[in-house]
Amino acid sequence: MCTAATYKTKDFYMGRTLDYEFAYGEEVTVMPRNYPLHFRYMGDMSEHFAIIGMAHVADNYPLYYDAVNEKGLGMAGLNFVGNAVYAEPDTEADEKENVSQYEFIPWVLSQCSSVKEVRSLLMRINLVGTPYSEMFPAAQLHWIIADENEAITVESVKEGLKVYDNHVGVLTNNPPFDIQMLMLADYAGLSPKQPVNTFASGVNLNMYSRGMGAMGLPGDLSSRSRFARVAYTKMNSRSGDSENESVSQFFHILGSVEQQRGCCEVADGKYEITIYTSCWNAAKGIYYYTTYENSQISAVDMNREDLESSGLKRYPLVNGQHINYQN
Amino acid sequence: MCTAATYKTKDFYMGRTLDYEFAYGEEVTVMPRNYPLHFRYMGDMSEHFAIIGMAHVADNYPLYYDAVNEKGLGMAGLNFVGNAVYAEPDTEADEKENVSQYEFIPWVLSQCSSVKEVRSLLMRINLVGTPYSEMFPAAQLHWIIADENEAITVESVKEGLKVYDNHVGVLTNNPPFDIQMLMLADYAGLSPKQPVNTFASGVNLNMYSRGMGAMGLPGDLSSRSRFARVAYTKMNSRSGDSENESVSQFFHILGSVEQQRGCCEVADGKYEITIYTSCWNAAKGIYYYTTYENSQISAVDMNREDLESSGLKRYPLVNGQHINYQN
Amino acid sequence: MCTAATYKTKDFYMGRTLDYEFAYGEEVTVMPRNYPLHFRYMGDMSEHFAIIGMAHVADNYPLYYDAVNEKGLGMAGLNFVGNAVYAEPDTEADEKENVSQYEFIPWVLSQCSSVKEVRSLLMRINLVGTPYSEMFPAAQLHWIIADENEAITVESVKEGLKVYDNHVGVLTNNPPFDIQMLMLADYAGLSPKQPVNTFASGVNLNMYSRGMGAMGLPGDLSSRSRFARVAYTKMNSRSGDSENESVSQFFHILGSVEQQRGCCEVADGKYEITIYTSCWNAAKGIYYYTTYENSQISAVDMNREDLESSGLKRYPLVNGQHINYQN
Amino acid sequence: MCTAATYKTKDFYMGRTLDYEFAYGEEVTVMPRNYPLHFRYMGDMSEHFAIIGMAHVADNYPLYYDAVNEKGLGMAGLNFVGNAVYAEPDTEADEKENVSQYEFIPWVLSQCSSVKEVRSLLMRINLVGTPYSEMFPAAQLHWIIADENEAITVESVKEGLKVYDNHVGVLTNNPPFDIQMLMLADYAGLSPKQPVNTFASGVNLNMYSRGMGAMGLPGDLSSRSRFARVAYTKMNSRSGDSENESVSQFFHILGSVEQQRGCCEVADGKYEITIYTSCWNAAKGIYYYTTYENSQISAVDMNREDLESSGLKRYPLVNGQHINYQN
Repeated sequence: MCTAATYKTKDFYMGRTLDYEFAYGEEVTVMPRNYPLHFRYMGDMSEHFAIIGMAHVADNYPLYYDAVNEKGLGMAGLNFVGNAVYAEPDTEADEKENVSQYEFIPWVLSQCSSVKEVRSLLMRINLVGTPYSEMFPAAQLHWIIADENEAITVESVKEGLKVYDNHVGVLTNNPPFDIQMLMLADYAGLSPKQPVNTFASGVNLNMYSRGMGAMGLPGDLSSRSRFARVAYTKMNSRSGDSENESVSQFFHILGSVEQQRGCCEVADGKYEITIYTSCWNAAKGIYYYTTYENSQISAVDMNREDLESSGLKRYPLVNGQHINYQN
Repeated sequence: MCTAATYKTKDFYMGRTLDYEFAYGEEVTVMPRNYPLHFRYMGDMSEHFAIIGMAHVADNYPLYYDAVNEKGLGMAGLNFVGNAVYAEPDTEADEKENVSQYEFIPWVLSQCSSVKEVRSLLMRINLVGTPYSEMFPAAQLHWIIADENEAITVESVKEGLKVYDNHVGVLTNNPPFDIQMLMLADYAGLSPKQPVNTFASGVNLNMYSRGMGAMGLPGDLSSRSRFARVAYTKMNSRSGDSENESVSQFFHILGSVEQQRGCCEVADGKYEITIYTSCWNAAKGIYYYTTYENSQISAVDMNREDLESSGLKRYPLVNGQHINYQN
Repeated sequence: MCTAATYKTKDFYMGRTLDYEFAYGEEVTVMPRNYPLHFRYMGDMSEHFAIIGMAHVADNYPLYYDAVNEKGLGMAGLNFVGNAVYAEPDTEADEKENVSQYEFIPWVLSQCSSVKEVRSLLMRINLVGTPYSEMFPAAQLHWIIADENEAITVESVKEGLKVYDNHVGVLTNNPPFDIQMLMLADYAGLSPKQPVNTFASGVNLNMYSRGMGAMGLPGDLSSRSRFARVAYTKMNSRSGDSENESVSQFFHILGSVEQQRGCCEVADGKYEITIYTSCWNAAKGIYYYTTYENSQISAVDMNREDLESSGLKRYPLVNGQHINYQN
Repeated sequence: MCTAATYKTKDFYMGRTLDYEFAYGEEVTVMPRNYPLHFRYMGDMSEHFAIIGMAHVADNYPLYYDAVNEKGLGMAGLNFVGNAVYAEPDTEADEKENVSQYEFIPWVLSQCSSVKEVRSLLMRINLVGTPYSEMFPAAQLHWIIADENEAITVESVKEGLKVYDNHVGVLTNNPPFDIQMLMLADYAGLSPKQPVNTFASGVNLNMYSRGMGAMGLPGDLSSRSRFARVAYTKMNSRSGDSENESVSQFFHILGSVEQQRGCCEVADGKYEITIYTSCWNAAKGIYYYTTYENSQISAVDMNREDLESSGLKRYPLVNGQHINYQN
């Protein structure tokens, strides 16, 4: 399905894979500060923070999958099928802010500059299932929201809206986040270092390979195994802190859970693949991405746009394999 | 350490990762047909098949890590530390051809046009441990050799030279290949499809994620786990057969076993990473590669060189992250 | 910690292991129909169903760990540390029946003849944490309750009292039952049969051993792994339906999760072991058990007691290894 | 198939499970010192060490599965199907002692008092495949031989007779012993202690259960998984050193790899089970055993027999469940 991660060097990076069996037509989309936002229940917002992210644009409205605003607050929605349950609109209670699931990313990123502010906003929210249109039924999602200081996971489930501290800074899909975190304990003893033999004291065990300290880490593409694998990779990552080294390392982190065509069959002859992988520098507002068929990193820099304008700026994905021939 | 794989669509592809904690200075190196080859025990060869591959070039001599010749025969040497045992030179027996381990790739690729011919050549070989020089002690390696029809693994061990059919077309490091293949049976029931519940007949188990059919596949970076993972990925890969689709898929196959910096600590603060990943189109003689810090694919096309010449043509690796800015 | 299971042949069997680092002094204890029961909040009960089970008897009061009543309804309490949260006594609400956790087994078994009746009883219960005495603080437990038709799991947690259908008829400890069941899906494809090779189509994998269809089943002593292992063993068990064959098979089922001294260190030099394993024939009211130091099955038959009496009948555990010397 | 183990407290213990889908009719069989032994190629032996063990007796000849002699040397043969290759009789070479596989146990136990002596004997042996009779084709076996000081594994394979030091003192079936030992390194970091979190430094992982230090230990019934599990259990076992405590612990060690009926289907509706489990006190010459249907330990004491006699003494297995009714 999908995997998201955060990574901190000198700057703060965040991004995600989008794994699916087909693409809806995504574009890197910059929403400048004066793009008029019309919320379904919450009225209009004529001025707001500028946002860059990956979106399917429908009738000039950006349905963001993941995005970051000019304050360095980022957010990604990931599939949460079978567990996402949205509220009904509550138009009686004045204090509740009814926000449709498809508006959740712009709602948050247009007005919050930190996770701390998001926590306050979420106290008042009533996240409802109203679809964007008949053609776009409500996606069953959960979200990771992060700035350079902290990350949270937001899940709207049967029991209501749950907001979790996300100390590992990763998210995949089912099961719910609290169970994913609980199950991480199963791997607590794994390590980048070779293990000390505590299995058979006094017996010489031949450590026949490097990297045996993480044996037991799952390698399949289920959301539970991707969660454990990307958490391990992210939490143990080491890199220089230059932009290039940080971005490279970030794509390697998400590369650990990439979905190869053929390895996850979702219907006869249909395979889930990592359609795109994104990484944004939250401080600089640069949105990097690769696609399944193009391993070169493409980038759009929010700050090269006129952020005071009012129209969306859209960049179709560079999809073909761009090969650098040396001769 | 390293992983190699083969892949067949319309053309035949092969390549490898080189995983280590530092680079020796590799270059994509084309050896044209008239580059004079001086073998340690086997004399000179003034004319031979042209070769392209990754090499450390020492005193104008290419110490190939992996290469393919103009006939479409490819070969890669991978670490086999603790198990590789080379013979002593046997200068008595006329029928034996003494070849040093560092000459093995040019010895084979200069004169064989198929694995079938390699099998014959190996009947006469005496693979010896003579080092290239004092500065380059004999590397402990084993090899995968493949053309579009078949692949073999060659291991020089205590018991002698072993030649194995390699039906999965992958190789990593320890343990020896026959044990790696034996242990694949542990994963026989894994599948890209969702499993049918045979665990608890009549009980409804909630298949909460896609891709649960391969649960049990190992996800760590040991050579045994990489063998299983890359074998699964390769054997189940699906792609179009165009050059771009094939090459993309090949890099995704090896991406499944990529080593991220931090996840495999080989000494205090030293981490093994995937220094480069290569992929050649054996039919067309194009050598593609990426590096840890440059995810864009670079390429050198053997057939754009003058293959009748006598001098090595060397292309230093493009290492920095080449980002395609869209604005 | 502990494991419980049910098993059905001609009769219905149920039992559990008690795993801990020391014993409190348990006895097989028969409570006849006229033993006067004084409930903390619910008054006295002078007549009730007869019960047999394992109990620590304090001041002539049986603190049952597991028991079955004369109607064939059985129940076992298992450690649920960190997740069990009991209610406060609610003496306002008339409709609520305040029952202390230590009274839960006699409360249920004294008056219910089926799980169906238990479900009704649980609608009215307010399970409170009042301890038996200062010396016996409230144990953090959850329960499996079963008759020959169905099994349920009861958990008193932060969110309130949860009653789950238990379709596999097993229980261990943490995490909560719904998570344990969810995670069983990770093993859905395991099977007593040899796997068909779906890993590497067309490649001959040498199935070098019998029993490879369940590779991936966890073998450690954690409560999560014991849950999966005993569920697999129970759900796939086959036996004759005679009393001896059924009882033998039942002890083999729980034997699959037995704790050996040394394998689970809970404090320096302290090891959790399977102190006893019980199995009752719910139809016949026979309570069988073994202990860590006595593998012979001992038994107490409720129906050989005067069930119309009013005093507890207590049988200390037969603990030494009873060996049958043939010469 | 089968599992063997050794265990040392004050005395030395050894034994095995015999796992199969049916029994051949085994008996605990004492061979006194003057029972006349006729070897196929090696002539007669009229006097020898006394032996006790489990055997199928054919025409008054004990085909031992496992046995111990009066000197405390024990030996067990376990299935090794597909890998066992026996030599042809070599009647030319004087120095070679031709011994049939079915004679191997009596050949060794009749004349060796220690593993050290066995090592010498094995220097001269030519282990041949001559069957006992047409009705008893040569079983494909390998052996564990042990005294209180050391254990070895003997395997007759394609490459010849291999003798391995067995530092863990356990044996199961395929793959060959050296591979089993190599693969133990995969579990090197497992431990009876709770793991320290090295997976996600600085993140609080909730160790929700006791015994999480051995997560990753395999729980299925394949010979590879049983090898790892019994090695872990044996190497970490703790017990008192009295006879009862030692024997109890030994049966618990082998209990960790017991085969429950239904969990390993070897043909339609045919299931491998642990037919018997044996344990001998090598110092005292007592042979203990349990069977699938009788969990009580039965015992035969060699020293209660007249060891100077010449006839086999046979004790049929006590098979029914012997239950100790307390009321």
